[in-house]
Amino acid sequence: MTEEPLSAAWLTERTIYLLTLLREKRPLVHNITNLVVTNTTANALLALGASPAMVEGVEEVDSFARMADSLVINLGTMSSPRAAAMRLAMAAARQAGKPVVLDPVAVGALRYRTELARDLLEAKPHIVRGNASEIIALAGDGGGGRGVDSLVSSTAALEAASILARRTGGAVAVTGATDYVTDGTRLIGIANGHPMMTRVTGLGCTATALIGAFAAVEPDPLVAACAGLCATGLAGELAAIRADGPGSLQVEFLDALYALDSAILRDAARWVLP
Amino acid sequence: MTEEPLSAAWLTERTIYLLTLLREKRPLVHNITNLVVTNTTANALLALGASPAMVEGVEEVDSFARMADSLVINLGTMSSPRAAAMRLAMAAARQAGKPVVLDPVAVGALRYRTELARDLLEAKPHIVRGNASEIIALAGDGGGGRGVDSLVSSTAALEAASILARRTGGAVAVTGATDYVTDGTRLIGIANGHPMMTRVTGLGCTATALIGAFAAVEPDPLVAACAGLCATGLAGELAAIRADGPGSLQVEFLDALYALDSAILRDAARWVLP
Amino acid sequence: MTEEPLSAAWLTERTIYLLTLLREKRPLVHNITNLVVTNTTANALLALGASPAMVEGVEEVDSFARMADSLVINLGTMSSPRAAAMRLAMAAARQAGKPVVLDPVAVGALRYRTELARDLLEAKPHIVRGNASEIIALAGDGGGGRGVDSLVSSTAALEAASILARRTGGAVAVTGATDYVTDGTRLIGIANGHPMMTRVTGLGCTATALIGAFAAVEPDPLVAACAGLCATGLAGELAAIRADGPGSLQVEFLDALYALDSAILRDAARWVLP
Repeated sequence: MTEEPLSAAWLTERTIYLLTLLREKRPLVHNITNLVVTNTTANALLALGASPAMVEGVEEVDSFARMADSLVINLGTMSSPRAAAMRLAMAAARQAGKPVVLDPVAVGALRYRTELARDLLEAKPHIVRGNASEIIALAGDGGGGRGVDSLVSSTAALEAASILARRTGGAVAVTGATDYVTDGTRLIGIANGHPMMTRVTGLGCTATALIGAFAAVEPDPLVAACAGLCATGLAGELAAIRADGPGSLQVEFLDALYALDSAILRDAARWVLP
Repeated sequence: MTEEPLSAAWLTERTIYLLTLLREKRPLVHNITNLVVTNTTANALLALGASPAMVEGVEEVDSFARMADSLVINLGTMSSPRAAAMRLAMAAARQAGKPVVLDPVAVGALRYRTELARDLLEAKPHIVRGNASEIIALAGDGGGGRGVDSLVSSTAALEAASILARRTGGAVAVTGATDYVTDGTRLIGIANGHPMMTRVTGLGCTATALIGAFAAVEPDPLVAACAGLCATGLAGELAAIRADGPGSLQVEFLDALYALDSAILRDAARWVLP
Repeated sequence: MTEEPLSAAWLTERTIYLLTLLREKRPLVHNITNLVVTNTTANALLALGASPAMVEGVEEVDSFARMADSLVINLGTMSSPRAAAMRLAMAAARQAGKPVVLDPVAVGALRYRTELARDLLEAKPHIVRGNASEIIALAGDGGGGRGVDSLVSSTAALEAASILARRTGGAVAVTGATDYVTDGTRLIGIANGHPMMTRVTGLGCTATALIGAFAAVEPDPLVAACAGLCATGLAGELAAIRADGPGSLQVEFLDALYALDSAILRDAARWVLP
């Protein structure tokens, strides 16, 4: 992990380099994700340039996780067979040295998945991405009673992200109007995106999946998370210019990911540095 | 439940009021729905202005149904774990006083789900929405041999809907070229919609989900069902004007739900009163 | 099975005839498919003119497979309950004389589904559709270690397809830049399609489903497979002209399937005959 101070220019050029590398290598991203976003997540990974695969049977996840270049675990629409598959896949990915990204969907609001998420955290995922209330619930020692859309201060969320990052030894992303990524030492903000993105289901899950694609080509988890969030935010922002509503936004989002290039990144990536 | 005669103007203004309320409160709609429409249903709820959540694990449905503002149960792609989750969720929602909407997909054609649907009916869902053959099968005492697209007279369907409504004490919607809603006493028709909507999968399921969103803000089940069907029909109708086929219809449908407002409702809602 | 030599003109006119018949009869296509493509497959079948149904519960597949006009089995996102449902459905369809189409997704890369696919092959599906590495793995006696995107020679794939076709007594399709269909005796190529189609998830699965729709109206499995692949390729090709990227390609693809007609087929179907 580099400890040099990261500049906005460096982050942009690194994201451009990683995007080129990703489109060349087409890394195989293994997703165990929720039933709502299987299709849209796979399409976003394809549009960006990666090779998605949704493999979730307990019979198959161990061998597939070893074969893939990264693993993305998403806790939406949980059930115990899915939880068993996640444990197996995370253990296999870790053993094979493949990066793991965890999305703790609705953790804090539902006790079952809060406990599951804290348990999966023991496997030390390289990157965790959630919204403020999910990250706080995951870091905290209680929190089972928190509502789905509770208001939380961004300071509390960033503190929770730092605590989590030090616990996992990886990076933690808190997404919102501005996204933040920390590895417990460094902190980067990404100010891309558009409010209409909250009206399309699963764009948070998509951000997590794209982080998984970048993690397959970038060893520094903080940088991989930044690249994935910048790509997601930029594509959403460009899509919103052409969209009439959330239906067309979803379509334009995939076209924008496909069209993402160095000119767009240099022109519009908005990093927030301390 | 109001027993005043409902006028077309009253229904339009009530729908406008409910839409405003819904966009302000953003009710949390808990869906246990089929694998085909998870994504499109969530997107329709978001485009309208509600907060969708798909939670279906037996470990989580009880607590989530209590937390949500309404519950939508859809019998497509049935399996016994899903059936167990539905029973738990319906019991919890009823106990917590939350409205429940049931969509008996393919009931009549398949014995397993016909029996399940009749069993779930014991929990007295506030609103049931189906096509003519589904509603007849659900109300009837036989019907296991009925084909999926059997022709049924609309009179028979309306009689079945009335029988069902009196049994549940709620409202029953029979959808088709013209949609009808009854609570056993009152009967309202909604003549919005477009034939191309039958070429997009799951728009019936979407109608049910949108009814669930309106049921979270409207205590009268007949009125909630009318508002949901009018919103669905109008969005489909407006989408069809701009669409070249069922692919673009689906995209335009979400944009139209997002754009739905008082001007459109006053201009184009077509209520059919006895 | 006809043994006359098939001309390009005959194949085009037969596809036109089958498309008309399909839109008239609207055959019920029973799909047990993967979690990624349930929605997009159903929409493609509807756009073409068929009646899709996704029924996968072990409680229901036997009776539904008998009721439907054809059965499509897709091995993506496998699990043992899904495997049990597939076995039941295939046995029922075969007993009822309904055509069965098998899509061996990722066979070769994953041992569990390679074994499952070989086992399902015992039920002699009328049509198998896969990419080169899947068809080779399915025909071979080893192959468990093959990677997902291994390069394979097209000659090896065609040999494997012939072996498989003779084993099942049906037709086998190998899809790629040019698609090929053989029944062990005859060999037809279809050169429609567009490279951007590989950037949309599940268009291979969609091709399989559309073959299932044609198989419901065409007794010759080779001809049904040709018609389904030509429809898929043509729709993708026309969609790519209007699309800006994979997001809009997916939308335009459904609109193009809906608009597919005799003029388009006569103008643009590209058969490759030996």
